[in-house]
Amino acid sequence: MKVAVPTETFPLEQPVALTPSRVGVLRQKAGLEVEIQAGAGAGAGFSDAQYQQAGAAIVSDRAQLLGGADIVLQVRTLGANPVVGQADLPHFKSGALLIGFAEPLTERAATVALAQRGVTLLAMELLPRISRAQNMDALSSMASLAGYKAVLLAANHLAKVCPMMVTAAGTITPAKVLVIGAGVAGLQAIATARRLGAAVSAYDVRPAVKEQIQSLGAKFVELPLETAAAETQGGYAREQSGEQQRRQRELMARVVAESDIVITTAAVPGQKAPVLITGDMVRAMPPGAVIVDLAAGRGGNCELTEADQTVEVHGVTIIGATNLPAALAPQASLLYANNITNLLLHLFKDKQLVWNPDDPITRETLVTRDGKVVHAAVRTALGLTAND
Amino acid sequence: MKVAVPTETFPLEQPVALTPSRVGVLRQKAGLEVEIQAGAGAGAGFSDAQYQQAGAAIVSDRAQLLGGADIVLQVRTLGANPVVGQADLPHFKSGALLIGFAEPLTERAATVALAQRGVTLLAMELLPRISRAQNMDALSSMASLAGYKAVLLAANHLAKVCPMMVTAAGTITPAKVLVIGAGVAGLQAIATARRLGAAVSAYDVRPAVKEQIQSLGAKFVELPLETAAAETQGGYAREQSGEQQRRQRELMARVVAESDIVITTAAVPGQKAPVLITGDMVRAMPPGAVIVDLAAGRGGNCELTEADQTVEVHGVTIIGATNLPAALAPQASLLYANNITNLLLHLFKDKQLVWNPDDPITRETLVTRDGKVVHAAVRTALGLTAND
Repeated sequence: MKVAVPTETFPLEQPVALTPSRVGVLRQKAGLEVEIQAGAGAGAGFSDAQYQQAGAAIVSDRAQLLGGADIVLQVRTLGANPVVGQADLPHFKSGALLIGFAEPLTERAATVALAQRGVTLLAMELLPRISRAQNMDALSSMASLAGYKAVLLAANHLAKVCPMMVTAAGTITPAKVLVIGAGVAGLQAIATARRLGAAVSAYDVRPAVKEQIQSLGAKFVELPLETAAAETQGGYAREQSGEQQRRQRELMARVVAESDIVITTAAVPGQKAPVLITGDMVRAMPPGAVIVDLAAGRGGNCELTEADQTVEVHGVTIIGATNLPAALAPQASLLYANNITNLLLHLFKDKQLVWNPDDPITRETLVTRDGKVVHAAVRTALGLTAND
Repeated sequence: MKVAVPTETFPLEQPVALTPSRVGVLRQKAGLEVEIQAGAGAGAGFSDAQYQQAGAAIVSDRAQLLGGADIVLQVRTLGANPVVGQADLPHFKSGALLIGFAEPLTERAATVALAQRGVTLLAMELLPRISRAQNMDALSSMASLAGYKAVLLAANHLAKVCPMMVTAAGTITPAKVLVIGAGVAGLQAIATARRLGAAVSAYDVRPAVKEQIQSLGAKFVELPLETAAAETQGGYAREQSGEQQRRQRELMARVVAESDIVITTAAVPGQKAPVLITGDMVRAMPPGAVIVDLAAGRGGNCELTEADQTVEVHGVTIIGATNLPAALAPQASLLYANNITNLLLHLFKDKQLVWNPDDPITRETLVTRDGKVVHAAVRTALGLTAND
């Protein structure tokens, strides 16, 4: 069987779905032939020669590459790259297996189109959060990089140093950093801000993460809210009611007003991000403060955020970061390639692709098969009826 | 007596020489009237109202402000701001005391012009490195901020994370940072890079700093060179011979070739910075590497550096940073204002300005007085004869 890795085409997307070191692993462990589009690794620092040395063939023609592939590995499949990705669709073989980020819960047109083309889609973002799938969990590995980069960006924008500095000319107090949402990105942001010596506070609607926040040396912001049912079975934050959100904002306002840096990471998969920081809250922040909104791609946790833009409002810089791992392309590719290779190898037994619909990893990630959208939750989210 | 603080006019200079909190100190301890140019603190986050509340008068007309001043406090006096600063010269009172950075060892025209105008100039960069003068040492406090900011800039440009990350998807090794020159800026750069979790090496021609480097958790790069006389009495690195420099470069090349980030801080006061990193050494660095050259204002430690520019050569980003403290204007102003206030108060006894030519702080910093350039080392450096 042939596995193909096309160049990523999302605007400014630098990572690549497979690194040279994984080529040999796929060949040896799954008996796969590996084909890489010419230049696919360039943005992440991997040359065609490196892929060739690892045993991959380099293919210049994208249509030919896709047309010959039994398996296609991407960072962003059509759903996560609907504008540019359209051109690829007619080239896929019917029955081809496609793995990558896919936005299956929101991108109806792309998901249905892939099904109709006969493509079998495994969506990386649907991986269950179980121990066995941890080494495939690209959402977590990308979030970790995003959390780090968010703090670096913010600290570099801030006209203050992060650590306390005791000098002969006086003492500089540490910068105050607030991290909202203590998932993987939030925890990495907390850790990075603490490394830099900032005074870090963090908030999450899930009280269970309080200890994790504190173990990183940050202060847990206590908002006395009804939070019992704030966590889903999958470990994500559950969407909150309007009244809860209003009270949360009111209490949050005081904390935000004291912060030099705010990193927001509150996103619910497949949904618009909750607005946690209003324009009034931004206005109350110290001049020169910086917000990095990691939920910018889902509408933003701050109501003044503009996706992919850095704006200054009321003297506060708001960075609408939708794709920070792209700024760390070599390492984002390294982690992603490990994730996707682990997932692909999980489907193989004795160098044969074996479908096991009872396997939770297969069942949870499988979106389309045999011309149909087969994932129940995806069907519901997209509003598909029995006729679709 | 009146002390005046004009707005800084050096391009992109944000700091201000005096903060509101120091206004009251000068009024109470030295009995001074304080006048601030309207808007002088804006770039550093201090409003005219804050200065007024502290007891300062706001003066809109710069010529009037300077013309009425017995003492003028600046970050950059004429010598450190020769192009834009010219316009101020005719407004100074004869006999006025001017304190600030002045580049007295190299800026002959500015230094002579201030003397001829009858201005008494105290140059901040000539402060002796003795314990008593530590709280006046603006060169050190600005270097400390520059060292921090250099690492933040570099880490934010680098397409890698600095710390080691152990994730389910694999381990990311720490970025490698090399700091050249372990003065105040270099030591702060080492500390900041270590905070970020990078693997840090550092080099200095003065073997005495080896322990300081190691105490910050960095590896001391041993270059087996003749370095006995590498340190001046004042604690600065001494200029090295051509042969020493050649061998140093040869050994350095191997270390540079392994580094993701190089921060260079090797500057000898009043002289062109030594070239430590050649174009060939840059070419041998990993693609995506970043150099921040803190000696860019004195010609640069890297021969490809362009002052005030960020250039990419051989896939390496080279940041020619001449004035990083300006990016941290509020805190640069806070430290500088403390430094300059401490120096000014040192000259006062019972609210009277008392000249004591035997005091080492006065003697070392006093550049011009009574129409003459009076500082012996400055006269030699500028090539002044008995007739000048």
